[in-house]
Amino acid sequence: SKKPRRERAQRERSVVENLTVGLNVIDRDDKHINETVNINFEDVIAEPDAAQGIEAIWRGVFLIFTGVRFWAYRLLALFLAIPIAFVWAIVFTLITFVYIWVATPFLKVFDILLNIIRRVWTGLVMTVCEPFALAFASVFSGIRIKHQSKPDSEV
Amino acid sequence: SKKPRRERAQRERSVVENLTVGLNVIDRDDKHINETVNINFEDVIAEPDAAQGIEAIWRGVFLIFTGVRFWAYRLLALFLAIPIAFVWAIVFTLITFVYIWVATPFLKVFDILLNIIRRVWTGLVMTVCEPFALAFASVFSGIRIKHQSKPDSEV
Amino acid sequence: SKKPRRERAQRERSVVENLTVGLNVIDRDDKHINETVNINFEDVIAEPDAAQGIEAIWRGVFLIFTGVRFWAYRLLALFLAIPIAFVWAIVFTLITFVYIWVATPFLKVFDILLNIIRRVWTGLVMTVCEPFALAFASVFSGIRIKHQSKPDSEV
Amino acid sequence: SKKPRRERAQRERSVVENLTVGLNVIDRDDKHINETVNINFEDVIAEPDAAQGIEAIWRGVFLIFTGVRFWAYRLLALFLAIPIAFVWAIVFTLITFVYIWVATPFLKVFDILLNIIRRVWTGLVMTVCEPFALAFASVFSGIRIKHQSKPDSEV
Amino acid sequence: SKKPRRERAQRERSVVENLTVGLNVIDRDDKHINETVNINFEDVIAEPDAAQGIEAIWRGVFLIFTGVRFWAYRLLALFLAIPIAFVWAIVFTLITFVYIWVATPFLKVFDILLNIIRRVWTGLVMTVCEPFALAFASVFSGIRIKHQSKPDSEV
Repeated sequence: SKKPRRERAQRERSVVENLTVGLNVIDRDDKHINETVNINFEDVIAEPDAAQGIEAIWRGVFLIFTGVRFWAYRLLALFLAIPIAFVWAIVFTLITFVYIWVATPFLKVFDILLNIIRRVWTGLVMTVCEPFALAFASVFSGIRIKHQSKPDSEV
Repeated sequence: SKKPRRERAQRERSVVENLTVGLNVIDRDDKHINETVNINFEDVIAEPDAAQGIEAIWRGVFLIFTGVRFWAYRLLALFLAIPIAFVWAIVFTLITFVYIWVATPFLKVFDILLNIIRRVWTGLVMTVCEPFALAFASVFSGIRIKHQSKPDSEV
Repeated sequence: SKKPRRERAQRERSVVENLTVGLNVIDRDDKHINETVNINFEDVIAEPDAAQGIEAIWRGVFLIFTGVRFWAYRLLALFLAIPIAFVWAIVFTLITFVYIWVATPFLKVFDILLNIIRRVWTGLVMTVCEPFALAFASVFSGIRIKHQSKPDSEV
Repeated sequence: SKKPRRERAQRERSVVENLTVGLNVIDRDDKHINETVNINFEDVIAEPDAAQGIEAIWRGVFLIFTGVRFWAYRLLALFLAIPIAFVWAIVFTLITFVYIWVATPFLKVFDILLNIIRRVWTGLVMTVCEPFALAFASVFSGIRIKHQSKPDSEV
Repeated sequence: SKKPRRERAQRERSVVENLTVGLNVIDRDDKHINETVNINFEDVIAEPDAAQGIEAIWRGVFLIFTGVRFWAYRLLALFLAIPIAFVWAIVFTLITFVYIWVATPFLKVFDILLNIIRRVWTGLVMTVCEPFALAFASVFSGIRIKHQSKPDSEV
């Protein structure tokens, strides 16, 4: 029963690849939304010229850091990526649904009601406050600018 | 009785399509009012170059996220879209009716009354306050600007 | 007696049409005073590209929303529009009458009285306060703006 | 059993060198992130012309300083570099994982919620505060500037 | 046994000289980090023309000052320079090690965490404060400037 199983696995894989045919598996951060954590070995650990350890240790450090990161991330992603993606898919679907069918129409109703309140409130405030502003606008009514161009000194 | 039923279903569908002949079913957000939730996979989840998991898992994550979103939204919309649309239709009709037949005429009456109050109030405030403003307007009456154009150095 | 009744109805209708011959029945909001509630289906409900339900449901939603709005508003207007119009007609007539025959002449009297008070009050305030303003006007008498036009380097 | 051991060691070393073939072992601070501690003998200890000790002591001081630094750093790095690199690899992996799979999607959700709150809050604030701003805008509505150019004194 | 000892001393000296072959023993303050204490006799003691003592005394003062400085510094450096250089070498090594292997990676982690907090905090502050700024922007919406040029007095 090994052969049919392998065949099935192969078929499944080919189905997955067909469904994700447009997915960019090389550059997985097209829009650079996680550029902040795009951190390599040389961004974290560096020995300046004045303090360099043994070359073998440096090679070992590089191997340990990159290797551990590589495999630790792979393991975490292997077990957690799918369920987390599932949860976020549900969360975003609910938010999208509520936003489309509840929030947007409600904000439209809110705008209309606010428009009525705004007109009444603007009318009251303008009536009470504008006369003061108009009265004190006269402060700027008497600006007289006298231009005194000095005669050309060359004449 | 299967055939007539199918025929009836087909006829009903063709009626719906005739009634919605101008509806854009491809671009359903013509005015971009829900652009905020126009969120795809690459807007939410991204692995920068320094942290990339196994390719198969990445493909799986993509499938799970997009698949779950697709079907979860479809299911929600299938059962809730029609009743929610019905409710909003009633709400917007009532608001529209009240706005047209009550709010707008009332705001017109309000404007007229406010106009009378405004004239009386403006008259009183202007009478009391404007003289002060006029008196202090003289502060700006003596601005003398002296133009001192430096002679052209090329002459 | 069926024929005379139909004739009478036709005559009545033709009378109504003659009396409203200049009325724009197509564009009923010439001055856009109710633009706020000029809300169509695409202003309220929209599915962005990332979240689109089944096409049939979308067509159904459109039909339900526009259909319910259309008929609900028609029904409301059928029974309420005429009495509401009657009430507003009475209200606006009363306000207009009072405005023309009481408010405007009173405001004219008020303006004249205010004018006398204003001249006395302005005279007093100007006499007391303007000298201070004139004295402090010298603060701005020393503004010297030097225009330095750079010579054209191309000549 | 000495020979096979040496061979194995050699093989291991060649494996490490193959795995780190792109690693720059000469310039270990490509991005100058630790330039601050790139401190040599002449940056710390210097005798100006007016105060110079015996030449042999100066040579000795140089040897002691550079030698102690060289070997002390090598020893520290020999025992601590690998475990520290391991710890940081784990830490950065966890941070990267949480950032990619939890923080970024959460911030996206936060943006959407904030967008709704922003629209409601903007509407309220604008409705309450804008009328005051509009009313007091009239203060600047009466600016009248009178230009008085003195007659040319050359005429 | 005197000869071998001298030979050994000579050999040691030649070893030291080989190890410090690149050391500049003439200009020991290449980077001028201790220019502040590069003080000679003429920087400290000087008799202006109007106050000059006996020439012999002046010569004696010069000899005493420079001689005492020279030998006192040499003695101090002979006994203390080497141990002090040792201590500083240890101190700088520890600081360098901690900086490279603890401080720099920690600062990187700090940057990432700060990035998340920054986005949340920016969102909150913008949401709360921006509407006020928008509302009060209307204060400047009513600037109306009326130019009144007086008729030419020459006509």
